Amino acid sequence: MTSERIGILHPGEMGAFLAASALKSGHHVYWASEGRSANTQHRAAKLGLVDAETVAHLCAECSFLVSICPPHAAEAVANQVAAAGFTGLYLDANAISPQRAVRMSQAMTPAGITFVDGGIIGGVTQEPGRTTLYLSGPRVDEVAACFSAGALMTRVLGTTVGQASAVKMCFSAYNKGSVALLAAILGTAESLGVRHELYRLWRRDEADFPDQVAARVCRSAPRAWRYSGEMEEIATTFREAGIPGDFHTAAAVIYRRLAPFKGSTEVTLEQVLAALLAPDAETDTGSTI
Amino acid sequence: MTSERIGILHPGEMGAFLAASALKSGHHVYWASEGRSANTQHRAAKLGLVDAETVAHLCAECSFLVSICPPHAAEAVANQVAAAGFTGLYLDANAISPQRAVRMSQAMTPAGITFVDGGIIGGVTQEPGRTTLYLSGPRVDEVAACFSAGALMTRVLGTTVGQASAVKMCFSAYNKGSVALLAAILGTAESLGVRHELYRLWRRDEADFPDQVAARVCRSAPRAWRYSGEMEEIATTFREAGIPGDFHTAAAVIYRRLAPFKGSTEVTLEQVLAALLAPDAETDTGSTI
Repeated sequence: MTSERIGILHPGEMGAFLAASALKSGHHVYWASEGRSANTQHRAAKLGLVDAETVAHLCAECSFLVSICPPHAAEAVANQVAAAGFTGLYLDANAISPQRAVRMSQAMTPAGITFVDGGIIGGVTQEPGRTTLYLSGPRVDEVAACFSAGALMTRVLGTTVGQASAVKMCFSAYNKGSVALLAAILGTAESLGVRHELYRLWRRDEADFPDQVAARVCRSAPRAWRYSGEMEEIATTFREAGIPGDFHTAAAVIYRRLAPFKGSTEVTLEQVLAALLAPDAETDTGSTI
Repeated sequence: MTSERIGILHPGEMGAFLAASALKSGHHVYWASEGRSANTQHRAAKLGLVDAETVAHLCAECSFLVSICPPHAAEAVANQVAAAGFTGLYLDANAISPQRAVRMSQAMTPAGITFVDGGIIGGVTQEPGRTTLYLSGPRVDEVAACFSAGALMTRVLGTTVGQASAVKMCFSAYNKGSVALLAAILGTAESLGVRHELYRLWRRDEADFPDQVAARVCRSAPRAWRYSGEMEEIATTFREAGIPGDFHTAAAVIYRRLAPFKGSTEVTLEQVLAALLAPDAETDTGSTI
């Protein structure tokens, strides 16, 4: 196996996890420090990534680029790479709709870029088998081979761009969508003064269901800031497939209201309910109620 | 205990279940046949309900009326009763928003009607403890006493109109809302060609989850025609409580697409997916996609 020069755009927590897997698989991993935060700087230094400084240098240096960023930034990152004249292998590993992945592929391919669709299911972990990078598109086995060591697993879904993103969207649609629905129900029940009566009913069917619900909702709060964009992508995915997208439009509003918990280590249900029922005007932009 | 004269508007399946409980509790139960279907006629005759023929006669004959009808008809039934000059006890046992129950109470009280809020959780059953009539409002113990025998349980939530409906809405919000969400996900995954890959992921966490999901979705299809109105009421409940209502706006669309399965005894997942992805234009009115 030849050693590839792989550029990571950008080594956030998940980006650093992919970088670590590529390093363990015997590749050289680069990043571009320009405009990045001190946290990102710190993560890149700790891993020993090579700093190409600018995205333009990264594009010149590497034959394979990996985009791992919030969903709303995915196209801007791709445009920056295309504008720099990159003509190698490009993996978009973001939580975007499959239809958006197809459009990005259609825009990048004429510029000589080989677009591969990716979707990550699971979180940053040291435990093998917990987190999988789904892949679909051209030269997909080559991409999978770059992440053959470390805790990250890969799963190849064939050569059609969009399949990896479709799996990611459909899995998150329930995983994160049902938590948002439960949060919305708790907020409504609290507002109407029937939360404990609802718990009583839930307990009849499953004794610890109220506790499970509270735990799931509270656990989601510190990560809610990055879920809202993903919910918007799921809403788009559903609509373009001919299914109502409003479940996840509502889920996006719920997660936006919980966005202020970013960085919190312990969140109580009372705090969550307060944020749901009296959201900051600022975090509630785009509200559909 | 005195024997009351109770009128049921109208003895559909659930109405007949309430009527049976009232009869068993030692009361006289009336209905009004004018404009009702042959099925309703049959149910009333089988139970031995007394036919007052018209709603006006029913209002004159009875001191206690029970409204049990689809949510969108609840206010029309109440208006008909008020227009007939009824001045007794009125139980609305329908799946309506608590805010609507409060508005109905505010409209009926000045006309001398005692409005009691009700919500039924569970289905028609012979097994005691499976189905409960939640009650809140004035003279609520008197209402509960009318249903003291038979399989139907009652639970009194105090004297505030809206509490019973609030519990019903919040419970259905997850019970029926999550099934609609799962149906939407299956439809999207099928449309994108990743349903079996999604099943594979779901199985990793819980071996029989895909089978459970398919069973829940298929079981809901024959009843979907009467769920869509309830979903709209839940959406209103959420919005008026300051929480996004779009989860259930989408759920209403899903159930409208499944409405053609009314009366079906066995529905396959393939049939459900086809109905979700190629809905009849007629059943899809009010679609939000």
